[in-house]
Amino acid sequence: MQLHRKKRIEIVAEAAIVPMLIQGLGDAGASGYTVLPALSGGGHAGIWSENAMSAALQMRMILVIASPELADAVVARLQPLILQYQAILSVSDVEVMRGDHFA
Amino acid sequence: MQLHRKKRIEIVAEAAIVPMLIQGLGDAGASGYTVLPALSGGGHAGIWSENAMSAALQMRMILVIASPELADAVVARLQPLILQYQAILSVSDVEVMRGDHFA
Amino acid sequence: MQLHRKKRIEIVAEAAIVPMLIQGLGDAGASGYTVLPALSGGGHAGIWSENAMSAALQMRMILVIASPELADAVVARLQPLILQYQAILSVSDVEVMRGDHFA
Repeated sequence: MQLHRKKRIEIVAEAAIVPMLIQGLGDAGASGYTVLPALSGGGHAGIWSENAMSAALQMRMILVIASPELADAVVARLQPLILQYQAILSVSDVEVMRGDHFA
Repeated sequence: MQLHRKKRIEIVAEAAIVPMLIQGLGDAGASGYTVLPALSGGGHAGIWSENAMSAALQMRMILVIASPELADAVVARLQPLILQYQAILSVSDVEVMRGDHFA
Repeated sequence: MQLHRKKRIEIVAEAAIVPMLIQGLGDAGASGYTVLPALSGGGHAGIWSENAMSAALQMRMILVIASPELADAVVARLQPLILQYQAILSVSDVEVMRGDHFA
């Protein structure tokens, strides 16, 4: 079984900026992503929960699998948004099946 | 604090094939897994969102913690399904508490 | 683009013990976390699904990004809860933007 070394990019951000992040992913060349819902959390901005928030403050997780080169491009392209909106972006090493499907 | 080296398998797939994937996990010897909901995404099959889809097209994330040997067995067992249904399977290194609970 | 080496802690646990886990995170010095919903799963306690369960048995995923030192403190602080309630705690290496935001 051959797996292929890629990067897994995980972003946690307000739902309101997800369209901008997805636009940025596309601009960087990443066409594949998955969005998951988050229920609650805490951090520098205090504690939040989905029930207590307007739709604009709901949180999401975005996952992207990319080659190391594409991951660099994604990180560079999204940095201003991540910094401005205090989102969280983390990158880790993964091995994937179907390596040719991830630029 | 002693942690134990294991593999974390993450699968993103259509909800409709989750029962087949879980069956495959069991066949490979992995009894423990968690399923999370996904809201939307994009990729080779275009952009999708939970609101715009029938139940059959909803997406899920499946997580499994396994020993390296079991992870190899899971990858081999699930490969046909992953390829046929264009799902995403990634494997990464993790350290877990309660290592004896993960074959 | 400079990224910062941190640890990603992922916990899968019953919703009922999430408040205790978050309290423990705070006690260990981790103020930032995200909670995601889970739909179903299987393991030593059998198969479960959100539909078939009372609220007390719903499952959640908690994510925390922390320095290696803080991750050690979190693992030590949460160990009794993880063991008592048969939760799953895994730790992996990640690189993050905004490294100064994660103690």
